[in-house]
Amino acid sequence: MTYPANDAFPLLAINQDRLWARHMEMARIGAIEGDGSCRLAMTSEDSEARTLLAKWCRDAGLEMTVDGAGNMFAVRAGRDPARAMVASGSHLDTQPHGGRFDGVSGVLAALEVVETLNDAGIETDAPLGVVNWTNEEGVRYGPGLLGSAWYAGLIDDDALSRVRAADGIFFEDEAKKRGWLGEGSDKVPIGTFVELHIEQGPILEREGLQVGIVTSVQGLVWLDVKVTGMDAHAGTTPLDHRQDALLAAARMLAALNDAGRRCGEAARVSVGRLTTATDGPSTIVGHAEFVVDIRHPDARTLAALRDECASICRAVGEGAGCEVAVDERISVPPTDFDQRCIAALENGAVARGYDHRRISSGALHDAANVAKIAPTAMIFVPCKDGISHNVREYASPEDLAAGTNVLMDAMLSLAGLRTQSRS
Amino acid sequence: MTYPANDAFPLLAINQDRLWARHMEMARIGAIEGDGSCRLAMTSEDSEARTLLAKWCRDAGLEMTVDGAGNMFAVRAGRDPARAMVASGSHLDTQPHGGRFDGVSGVLAALEVVETLNDAGIETDAPLGVVNWTNEEGVRYGPGLLGSAWYAGLIDDDALSRVRAADGIFFEDEAKKRGWLGEGSDKVPIGTFVELHIEQGPILEREGLQVGIVTSVQGLVWLDVKVTGMDAHAGTTPLDHRQDALLAAARMLAALNDAGRRCGEAARVSVGRLTTATDGPSTIVGHAEFVVDIRHPDARTLAALRDECASICRAVGEGAGCEVAVDERISVPPTDFDQRCIAALENGAVARGYDHRRISSGALHDAANVAKIAPTAMIFVPCKDGISHNVREYASPEDLAAGTNVLMDAMLSLAGLRTQSRS
Repeated sequence: MTYPANDAFPLLAINQDRLWARHMEMARIGAIEGDGSCRLAMTSEDSEARTLLAKWCRDAGLEMTVDGAGNMFAVRAGRDPARAMVASGSHLDTQPHGGRFDGVSGVLAALEVVETLNDAGIETDAPLGVVNWTNEEGVRYGPGLLGSAWYAGLIDDDALSRVRAADGIFFEDEAKKRGWLGEGSDKVPIGTFVELHIEQGPILEREGLQVGIVTSVQGLVWLDVKVTGMDAHAGTTPLDHRQDALLAAARMLAALNDAGRRCGEAARVSVGRLTTATDGPSTIVGHAEFVVDIRHPDARTLAALRDECASICRAVGEGAGCEVAVDERISVPPTDFDQRCIAALENGAVARGYDHRRISSGALHDAANVAKIAPTAMIFVPCKDGISHNVREYASPEDLAAGTNVLMDAMLSLAGLRTQSRS
Repeated sequence: MTYPANDAFPLLAINQDRLWARHMEMARIGAIEGDGSCRLAMTSEDSEARTLLAKWCRDAGLEMTVDGAGNMFAVRAGRDPARAMVASGSHLDTQPHGGRFDGVSGVLAALEVVETLNDAGIETDAPLGVVNWTNEEGVRYGPGLLGSAWYAGLIDDDALSRVRAADGIFFEDEAKKRGWLGEGSDKVPIGTFVELHIEQGPILEREGLQVGIVTSVQGLVWLDVKVTGMDAHAGTTPLDHRQDALLAAARMLAALNDAGRRCGEAARVSVGRLTTATDGPSTIVGHAEFVVDIRHPDARTLAALRDECASICRAVGEGAGCEVAVDERISVPPTDFDQRCIAALENGAVARGYDHRRISSGALHDAANVAKIAPTAMIFVPCKDGISHNVREYASPEDLAAGTNVLMDAMLSLAGLRTQSRS
């Protein structure tokens, strides 16, 4: 730690009540039944959330920049113009039936760190940044983690310009229309990045821990599967003369789940989106599409599982008289985080006396993209029953505050408080 | 036959070119790629088709009545005020990826009969009616065969007033808004009903026949199945801790198809509509719904198959940790048509020298509802490759004309031409 914890200089603490109040205020934007939030990226709800964040950042004296993918960077100046920014943040967009904490907590924690330092009159050598990455969830516009992927150079300007929703609307057109698209391809420079996020799994809660120090993120592959059979009449077409794309897709889903279970407990194989070209109860479906979400912490196992899933879809389709196209839409290898960033977080947890452990993330995060170009790590906050992507998602004010304190400690350590405290 | 086929009084023939031209003109309304049509009931496309039919009927000197379910009756007066109307028709609405013949052909055939009689100056004792039944397909508003079900008293005014689309719009509100809802509960009286329709199956074409005389319609049950699990994150939730409603639904679809195949070649078990409450590739689906379309020509077998399908859904749901609700939305028992109507049609086919056979309908039709309250039968016209509910649906001008000639013969026989020809 860069500041002593004793009576003369008590351990700085973030404002738990302010942090919680901001969560609740943000949750009112796109609120849905059951304490949930629905703010799909670049919808009016997302835009409203961005406007609120921008206001809070302005009130905190930060300078806002929006880049060519709509990522927001609110910067607090440092004392040393030669130092690169120590940034923190996450995303304000949510799943369709999302909760109040996934993503939001990381953005608000970063803002809370800055405001706590403002209140205490503490400056840092390196500038600090509060970041909101665009379209982490990838619901309306695929792929997810869009903003951080563009930022890290994983997709280029051309690819970004081709991103469009199912209804044909281009991402860039909608972002521009709503006033959230910066010009040009320049990236706002980041020196190091630390992201706070709810765990979205059951481990920390089950083990009674306050903080998780995230050392890696499991890899992910999305497969786009398109199944083409033939529309037909449900009454007149004998069962053995059909090319039923929905039935074929259903058999694929069952077989994909079986393959995931065979691969062991770390494997994840999921289908959360399935669409059909027709929607009549008495029309045999001629075309169906779905996305397979495949995850594993080991790169070679992930690749093998991906190949098995693709083979399953092709084999089941052939057996059902359907044509099957399988395309890899997104592939993110497992990510190991930066040792110095991990140590900075771990030191904070130790100094605070929080119960903590090292953990690997089962969910993908923007930090995994940023780690490609800058030293990066993450902090996990426990969430109730491991539930997320669900309106019942919950993290306690105390746990959010604990995680944000550790985030503050790490940011101060990485940004250099010593110079200021010596001056 | 009621008129002689000889040189002095040549066999009356409908105008094949006019009939075909009307098909092509109607198909331009709601035209979709691949020669298809999309005119869901009470949409603007359906309304436009109704307006065109009304114009043609007016030009043919018919008097139009629209009843309280939006059914259209265009009446050609008869010579005997005591005789009940001999009606014919079908429906103008289509499936989402429908063709140019399903339904349309029956309406245009009835109109063509009237126009041919107009051209020949032939009057009938009984009035003749051209009917367009509302919402046969049941896509936007369920159940299908809505207009004929209300007409036959199978659903009452209260039930009709509760019919609404998935987006919450009530059927009656939309019908009224578009000007296609008559007032009151009175039914336009029909004495007998004969419906022409494409076969929608492969039998007539395979056997090289021009006309099918339909003696019965197989029964149908729709089951609404709702599967409730829990939304969760695709990355962090282990496969054996999920309550995945879409996966459960997929396993149900596979098991339902297996049950249909076990039941024998006459059985039909189909799922053409499946929806999920969420649509994110990385959100485990917490709620899914689908409709099972079950058909069989034997009433007892149909009931047993329905019970087995419901049991399958409940058992698979339990195994997947999901709650399952199964509700019977519509149930139409098998229908045997009227022997006198069947004979009138068969006589026509014999007199014309057409190759024909008796046949049972694999598809449900408005005629099955009308048969509950009036003597009824149907004529089938072959369709290419047995394909329907598909943009590739096709019936030839020659086959449509042959079927319409037989329809005319039967209508003249049932309505009584003899009185006029003696006068």
